[in-house]
Amino acid sequence: MRRMPDPLVVMKFGGSSVAGAERIKRVARRIARERASGSDLVVVVSAMGDTTDELLALAAGVTDEPDLRELDVLLATGEHQSATLVSMALHAIGVSAISLTGPQAGITTDGRYGKARIAGIDPRRIRAEIAGGKVVIVAGFQGVSVAPLNGLDNTPTASDIHAAEITTLGRGGSDTTAVALAAQLGADRCQIFTDVTGIYTADPRIASDARQLPIIGYEEMMELANQGAQVMQVRAVELGWVNDVVIEVLSSFEDAPGTQIREDPLVEQRNKVRGLAHDRNVAKITLVDVPDKPGVARSVFGPLGDNGINVDMIVQNVGHGGATDLSFTIPRVELARAKRILDPLVRELGFREMTTDSSVAKVSIVGAGIQNAPGYAARMFGTLADAGINIEMISTSEIRITTIIAEDRVEEAVRALHAAFELERPESETAEAAAAAG
Amino acid sequence: MRRMPDPLVVMKFGGSSVAGAERIKRVARRIARERASGSDLVVVVSAMGDTTDELLALAAGVTDEPDLRELDVLLATGEHQSATLVSMALHAIGVSAISLTGPQAGITTDGRYGKARIAGIDPRRIRAEIAGGKVVIVAGFQGVSVAPLNGLDNTPTASDIHAAEITTLGRGGSDTTAVALAAQLGADRCQIFTDVTGIYTADPRIASDARQLPIIGYEEMMELANQGAQVMQVRAVELGWVNDVVIEVLSSFEDAPGTQIREDPLVEQRNKVRGLAHDRNVAKITLVDVPDKPGVARSVFGPLGDNGINVDMIVQNVGHGGATDLSFTIPRVELARAKRILDPLVRELGFREMTTDSSVAKVSIVGAGIQNAPGYAARMFGTLADAGINIEMISTSEIRITTIIAEDRVEEAVRALHAAFELERPESETAEAAAAAG
Repeated sequence: MRRMPDPLVVMKFGGSSVAGAERIKRVARRIARERASGSDLVVVVSAMGDTTDELLALAAGVTDEPDLRELDVLLATGEHQSATLVSMALHAIGVSAISLTGPQAGITTDGRYGKARIAGIDPRRIRAEIAGGKVVIVAGFQGVSVAPLNGLDNTPTASDIHAAEITTLGRGGSDTTAVALAAQLGADRCQIFTDVTGIYTADPRIASDARQLPIIGYEEMMELANQGAQVMQVRAVELGWVNDVVIEVLSSFEDAPGTQIREDPLVEQRNKVRGLAHDRNVAKITLVDVPDKPGVARSVFGPLGDNGINVDMIVQNVGHGGATDLSFTIPRVELARAKRILDPLVRELGFREMTTDSSVAKVSIVGAGIQNAPGYAARMFGTLADAGINIEMISTSEIRITTIIAEDRVEEAVRALHAAFELERPESETAEAAAAAG
Repeated sequence: MRRMPDPLVVMKFGGSSVAGAERIKRVARRIARERASGSDLVVVVSAMGDTTDELLALAAGVTDEPDLRELDVLLATGEHQSATLVSMALHAIGVSAISLTGPQAGITTDGRYGKARIAGIDPRRIRAEIAGGKVVIVAGFQGVSVAPLNGLDNTPTASDIHAAEITTLGRGGSDTTAVALAAQLGADRCQIFTDVTGIYTADPRIASDARQLPIIGYEEMMELANQGAQVMQVRAVELGWVNDVVIEVLSSFEDAPGTQIREDPLVEQRNKVRGLAHDRNVAKITLVDVPDKPGVARSVFGPLGDNGINVDMIVQNVGHGGATDLSFTIPRVELARAKRILDPLVRELGFREMTTDSSVAKVSIVGAGIQNAPGYAARMFGTLADAGINIEMISTSEIRITTIIAEDRVEEAVRALHAAFELERPESETAEAAAAAG
């Protein structure tokens, strides 16, 4: 009889799960339990607790504008540390383990410091360590790219340590590390352990009757993450979708069922709002009396994009007298930089003035059936109107409707919409059971 | 006219020199001044302040016996951090710089975790960065070795990042990094910046009239370092000696002349005690009534050596009635481990009992002329006797006499010996001037 290979599970633990010795030991026990069940394990860890913020503060102590390459080497140490500590804690309870840095794990990136994308994974070392009976702990959030250098071999590769440059994947990048490894290694499961028990219909700190979803489709999850739900990084969900990796979000503190992010075969049947997201990291910029001529949008949004500022919603009012108002939103943390970039354009483009508002927020409803059911938009706008909440901007996608409202009305809006769409009510038992079995 | 190449200077800054943002900025200004004078620079840094101890405490929080490989990855992050911060601080004041980890700098080691020795340096990347006009900041204390792995290429090398293992050189290893780089790169100067202004005739915190030496020979410095002077790591001095690197020890806080460690052409002329060293990290072990038969020493010291415990002084008394007492000293921090190793040998070797004493200390006099002048030993022992200090053990080398005394008499002994050998008196101006010019 041929022996089945051991199942391979990728487990990812976020920063709050490894904040401090006691939590690291608890994570080690959780890993040991999984290992005892016979699985081969690849564990991805984030930096401990506030380490990343502390390292950013160190950098801020010596310079206002840290070099991005140096910052990546600095930040990557946070995950090196947590990976070694988890490995040590496993040794201490008799589990054979080894930590690997992103470069050692063979994770290559495109070399954009601070926001690198994974270009490929050379799984040789990970596979060799698994074959040697070890639990492999991978430092998340990082990889390696190639430095173009004079004086080195003509074509250095990322496996040439002398030319190897450490790059980080941006905030939440450890999720991406985990999903990419699960895809590359053909893992049977990819578990994201967090400080919440799963994906909720809304932030339960705001909507007290928010309900955990047993399953959510990739696209719905991407929209929720994009619109402010902070449990999972958007790119990680996208990577899971493209590679068909079932991602399980669950608590590292409780033994409780989590939420599966996966293809949802019942999307068409559900045909309802699945969740709400809100985001306070929003600022609105309005350019007043912009001359209504071709090329204006490019002149405004080109320089912002070149500087890595993501423009989210854009609304252009109907022109009046050859001029128009152009409003758009950006992440609030980028507002000062965006103003510096746009200020010189006032003369060049000939608009009257630039006004900004950093006391706005986004509230979105997400659900795969929204597109075909216009009643949802009406119900959303009506609910906000009934609550006396003014809608400043609207944007929609196939599965989402987003509104910009005053920031101080956000919690009220979330609670009103949660009630209006009856999100506290479980979906039909049958539908959920079928989905879970799918 | 052919242009002379720029002089190359290696500068090393220890942990206290980079402890905190303000000190890092000061180090950056010091580097910038040197750079402005036209030198190419390779800068080696230790971890900031107490970082290494904090990382050890983190490891101690999760396990009593941290895996040595994991500990090396953990500890190496301290130097990654300080190197990036110094590089950022240089950028902030307009100096082009780049930090390199030990592996990126091409420093390969023999792979003994926690106490690796440098096996070689591949200088390609450093040279490429210097050629690109950059000050190169190298993370000290670390290098890279090769992991023997199944499933990877048959013969992975240290330049194959997948097999690359991070190794550290042991406490003070950044000194070794600096001297090894100076030797490999043929540097014109190798400067070790510390929190003292140079090498003193004794610890100035104890002997208030201790005098800074303008020059000291490699061998004398090695003996001083070996016997407790903590300014320089022994291996770094040895490496300087073998490679004929002139090492300059000087203060990172004051602009003051330091001490040169170099071949001392006046050694024969000096013919006097050059310095005192003391060391409290000493414990004495005595095996009582050891059967006087061949092989006993090997049975005792073999297992200690196998476990990496350095035995320093050994004294075997004259046998009486077929048995003898065997006394030796080890680092005090190793005492508990040494007892665990030796306890099972009581029966095997048939000695009566093992006694230990961890309240002893070493005091040594060092000088290249000691060997040929028996008067020094008599003066040392007489001085201690006059002070009522009992000598428990004695050992000598060609240029050193060491005594073991009670720890609570150490400061008294240092002061008495400093006076007895007139170390506060400068050597003849002529001799010093000649040496400095040599």
